[in-house]
Amino acid sequence: MDFASYLESRISLVDQAIERWLPASTEYPAILIDAMRYSLFAKGKRIRPILLLATAEAVCGEWQPFLPAACAIEMIHTYSLIHDDLPGMDNDDLRRGIPTNHKVFGEGHAILAGDALLTEAFYVLASADIPRTEAVKLQLVRELAQAAGWQGMIRGQTADLLNEGNQASAEMVHFIHRNKTGALLRGAVRMGAILGLAAPNQLDALTAYASQIGLAFQIVDDILDVEGETHVMGKTAGSDQAADKSTFVSLYGIQASKDQAQQLVAEAQQKLQQAGLLDASRLIELANFIVRRVW
Amino acid sequence: MDFASYLESRISLVDQAIERWLPASTEYPAILIDAMRYSLFAKGKRIRPILLLATAEAVCGEWQPFLPAACAIEMIHTYSLIHDDLPGMDNDDLRRGIPTNHKVFGEGHAILAGDALLTEAFYVLASADIPRTEAVKLQLVRELAQAAGWQGMIRGQTADLLNEGNQASAEMVHFIHRNKTGALLRGAVRMGAILGLAAPNQLDALTAYASQIGLAFQIVDDILDVEGETHVMGKTAGSDQAADKSTFVSLYGIQASKDQAQQLVAEAQQKLQQAGLLDASRLIELANFIVRRVW
Repeated sequence: MDFASYLESRISLVDQAIERWLPASTEYPAILIDAMRYSLFAKGKRIRPILLLATAEAVCGEWQPFLPAACAIEMIHTYSLIHDDLPGMDNDDLRRGIPTNHKVFGEGHAILAGDALLTEAFYVLASADIPRTEAVKLQLVRELAQAAGWQGMIRGQTADLLNEGNQASAEMVHFIHRNKTGALLRGAVRMGAILGLAAPNQLDALTAYASQIGLAFQIVDDILDVEGETHVMGKTAGSDQAADKSTFVSLYGIQASKDQAQQLVAEAQQKLQQAGLLDASRLIELANFIVRRVW
Repeated sequence: MDFASYLESRISLVDQAIERWLPASTEYPAILIDAMRYSLFAKGKRIRPILLLATAEAVCGEWQPFLPAACAIEMIHTYSLIHDDLPGMDNDDLRRGIPTNHKVFGEGHAILAGDALLTEAFYVLASADIPRTEAVKLQLVRELAQAAGWQGMIRGQTADLLNEGNQASAEMVHFIHRNKTGALLRGAVRMGAILGLAAPNQLDALTAYASQIGLAFQIVDDILDVEGETHVMGKTAGSDQAADKSTFVSLYGIQASKDQAQQLVAEAQQKLQQAGLLDASRLIELANFIVRRVW
């Protein structure tokens, strides 16, 4: 299967799995369920779930039984977007080409829909019929909470909020990226590795791979914020500049940022060779895919 | 030990356990950690953790090893208060006698501190060295997520938000109370029962006990909102009326509400007799304590 078809088929199966795990729209109160569904099905690229599944497959050859874990990480990602867009945070009106959650459902319901998705992620991990021991499932809970919580994503988001309007140092921009976007991408890969029953050295190599592509991913986002057009990106172009945020582009310029992203992807792919995987090809392609978005 | 000393000693041990599970203030970014700590140590009554510990003790005689689970449920409760108080929700300035989280740290940081506490609760459950099997710990994760998520607390909070400014029906007020406050109190008792390795019939009886005291608890809150004084309650008295919320008091009047709360507590205590507990006395006292707040 070529990579484009592979992506498309994985996205479709992840979507179906999310659908199975979501409450039906007939549940009361409908606005809560609708708000959860609205953002979950807002044309997400499903990069985190696909990374999780691809990593598990690369390690053990299996991926389909792990779809619930893929749903869980997408729920976390989606909640973080809903809360990030709130007026008290980034105050964005547009996300993935459509109005943000609070623009449609109001601020209170957007906060609650985010809280519900965050909570549901852990419900799914603890309830799903995944063919792994309880010890492994508990490890997934720990991994996801660590990636998403104050030790990971939220720490990055807080730093981002603190540094708005400042010319943040390069060190700070790295810190923000490593945590705000990097932690959850790393969590996706690590959860996939754990589900694949990776050996410790495999987990280490895959974690390093994830760190590199996580940073590359965010550099690409910074570039897109400058070079992209609003209708292509689905979010407001130039919003980083408008919010006076330090980014890789403001620190190093466009060309050096592109070079660095390319370099990180090459390093990530090297890491895979140390991991002794059954088949690294999809993970290599996913790394390329992440930077290809800007070329 | 008399009940007052019992409460005091449990509160103090829960506080110490929370302290152990919280990140240190020296972690970056300090504002995130400070905002988490601010609300966690804002003189909470620790009713949910104490209920959890008392239930486990009533079933199996042990409680101390379960302190981490008690912390987890208090983190969930605390996050829910932070988010409830936000301008986009109830817009409250005062909670437990001090300014609400967003008044001190700003809206964005209050949202993130809430998210971090919610996430950390699951991290604690999955990481703590609790002398129970992984299957039991996973059951706790499921139980907490169900109680706190769209099937429980958040559903109630959403209904509450929807019914602001309406004269809600008695059925709706019950729905809101059963979910908004009831679900987490029920979750506390059920988690304690699960940790105590309760038999299915014990879990059922304890769940019924929890449902009754949960409703009594909320009725008492409605009464306090009318009868209490701001400086005694630590939150703005009359806020339900100001928000035009239907409550037990607006539906049935003060006296009938008091009678109903008393009746619920009596029923709750009867349920305990069917549970075949080692010692039900603390759970009986806790039920009394919940209504005594208004007499």
